[in-house]
Amino acid sequence: MTAIEIPDGSLFGLNNLPYGVFSTPGTAPRVGVRVGDSVVDLAATLGDDVFAQPTLNAFMAQGHQRWVEVRERITELVSGDVPEAAVHSVDEVTLHLPVEVGDYVDFYASEHHASNLGRLFRPNAAPLMPNWKHLPVGYHGRAGSVIPSGTDILRPCGQRKAPDEDAPTFGESKRLDIEAELGFIVGTGSELGSSVPTEEFAERVFGVVILNDWSARDIQAWEYVPLGPFLGKSFATSISPWVVPLLALEAARVDTPEQDPEPLPYLRESSPWGLDIDLEVELNGEVVSRPPYREMYWSPAQMLAHMTVNGASSRTGDLFASGTISGPERDQRGAFIELTWGGKEPLQVGGEERTFLQDGDEVVLRATAPGVGGGRISFGEVRTRILPAKGTEK
Amino acid sequence: MTAIEIPDGSLFGLNNLPYGVFSTPGTAPRVGVRVGDSVVDLAATLGDDVFAQPTLNAFMAQGHQRWVEVRERITELVSGDVPEAAVHSVDEVTLHLPVEVGDYVDFYASEHHASNLGRLFRPNAAPLMPNWKHLPVGYHGRAGSVIPSGTDILRPCGQRKAPDEDAPTFGESKRLDIEAELGFIVGTGSELGSSVPTEEFAERVFGVVILNDWSARDIQAWEYVPLGPFLGKSFATSISPWVVPLLALEAARVDTPEQDPEPLPYLRESSPWGLDIDLEVELNGEVVSRPPYREMYWSPAQMLAHMTVNGASSRTGDLFASGTISGPERDQRGAFIELTWGGKEPLQVGGEERTFLQDGDEVVLRATAPGVGGGRISFGEVRTRILPAKGTEK
Repeated sequence: MTAIEIPDGSLFGLNNLPYGVFSTPGTAPRVGVRVGDSVVDLAATLGDDVFAQPTLNAFMAQGHQRWVEVRERITELVSGDVPEAAVHSVDEVTLHLPVEVGDYVDFYASEHHASNLGRLFRPNAAPLMPNWKHLPVGYHGRAGSVIPSGTDILRPCGQRKAPDEDAPTFGESKRLDIEAELGFIVGTGSELGSSVPTEEFAERVFGVVILNDWSARDIQAWEYVPLGPFLGKSFATSISPWVVPLLALEAARVDTPEQDPEPLPYLRESSPWGLDIDLEVELNGEVVSRPPYREMYWSPAQMLAHMTVNGASSRTGDLFASGTISGPERDQRGAFIELTWGGKEPLQVGGEERTFLQDGDEVVLRATAPGVGGGRISFGEVRTRILPAKGTEK
Repeated sequence: MTAIEIPDGSLFGLNNLPYGVFSTPGTAPRVGVRVGDSVVDLAATLGDDVFAQPTLNAFMAQGHQRWVEVRERITELVSGDVPEAAVHSVDEVTLHLPVEVGDYVDFYASEHHASNLGRLFRPNAAPLMPNWKHLPVGYHGRAGSVIPSGTDILRPCGQRKAPDEDAPTFGESKRLDIEAELGFIVGTGSELGSSVPTEEFAERVFGVVILNDWSARDIQAWEYVPLGPFLGKSFATSISPWVVPLLALEAARVDTPEQDPEPLPYLRESSPWGLDIDLEVELNGEVVSRPPYREMYWSPAQMLAHMTVNGASSRTGDLFASGTISGPERDQRGAFIELTWGGKEPLQVGGEERTFLQDGDEVVLRATAPGVGGGRISFGEVRTRILPAKGTEK
């Protein structure tokens, strides 16, 4: 038996306890919880097969009461001694995609981001569409290309057409971008024909990950009318491997910015689900932006209520993301298209001018929030490297 | 042992052999094949557990060569005597959703439909967007709300705003509509970072279903800018229970209409995958439209090539649909918004004027194609009834 050490100032203390799916050499992926710099094997310590699965889905499907109980049980467990064989150093495990994703929906909930993109994509029109302040605008993305941190991505190819060209051409995206977001994972779904009121958010949503909604702006700009983004987004969406339980975010809850006009009744909240979470965007080792989640106009509880108000069902493992998180300041923008104003105002990164991403670039997104009882908790990171487009490697 | 009777003129002869998932009272859903008016239990006759599953996914994942072999084996089998217990009358079985859907993508491949919708949704602009003839426009839909024929749907509620209103209101959709489409089911997927060339279509795609892409036009019109349709579509998508193997459609292959401008190389085809399939739309027992699939501008092989050209992965069970099938004639349009020109030109159905769907209405979509060796084959039907919105039942 061994005691689990939690280094002073660790962002993975007992008030965090995020879940993930890990493996060690020669063993199958299974559920673990992160404590300090250790990963505790839950199947081995709790003796429950629901944790011997390669995803969190079976555990999540057991529902909110069970999530509370297991969190209490883990807290007790890791405060005492645990079997040595059930504890691994986080450096020695491989982390996998933590959930089998059902449907993936991406929202567009930052007023600063939506306004910036409106100005860039539709310079001759009002930056926000008339519907934007009445409903959380969103669309379905590709669930099958959600990948975990550490998976490199190939630069995508596709059709793009510059405004001064007569016809589209095919080739590598020249405007490869990120979108720094949070992703919310549905733990218990809802039936076809029913809706999830905002009050049920905490009962339904299991936890939160950092999400990078990779975007090829040139492909997106040409394809997106009238049915929305498709290939400009579907080549990859990266998420962090640790799912921070919603139960760990009580101290991060804040009011959303004032919503004017007042939303329709089904979007009103009796208690706030704005979240005071700080993100950072790192390019090649240098932090280039610090997007503040607390600035998001629509809350995730409003997103889930909207997504199901028409009777659409939801399932364990559904993932819905916030949309790019951008604050009011330039260095709070969560995408390079905004940070460099469409590529016209390059950033200085590592002594070089940068607009969109280059082959070999590495992007890391991180996030932290206030923890219950003080201190901060971490969401870990999403780390991704850009490889050259296929067929163009030397 | 018993011989399987195939009635003269049956559209489910040996040149069709569609697969489905069925159950009889007290038994678990499993894979069957339809022959005449019988359903043959494949697990019971072929003794292979891959058919004892509740979806076709495991069988589909075995790949094209296996699909060919099983089709030959079934042809031999049902030409001789089979165990009586393995044969059920189609009237005595329950049919289930035949596949576990991975990602669901909806295209927009009919020039007639896209032009009609353009005129209706954007009356002051060119009906087709500049990208439309360069790529098959598409978007992701909600996989979790794909339901089988026979599942009633509730009228959806949501936000809608008439052009003459200042603000949106919440309530039942007043413009509930269908979209008559075909759906293509991916049998063997492709890795992240790879693309599926048009030549691999027949190797990758297992079969075809009829698909009804339910649409709430008032919700859709208010929400769809700039990220595309969302709640106007996500409440339900109905598919037919019988998956017609692509192998049964050799006699239906035709050239697509001329594509001008010539598509980029990745969208060109070395052999045609236009399909001469006739659909019919029935409302309350009366056929109101006969959409011809052969008029579709983009072929399904082009859709799959486009969907993966950016390196997006595909998976067994992915479903991609054609978009509404509309021909050049008024009585060939596959949606009521077109048939009634936005509700301004009502149809006469059963002695009543009809624009959009009313509670209690029943819609049936059917399709047939020329069969190999002569005669026609049927896709069966998608039958759905509209129930009143929740909370509004008397």
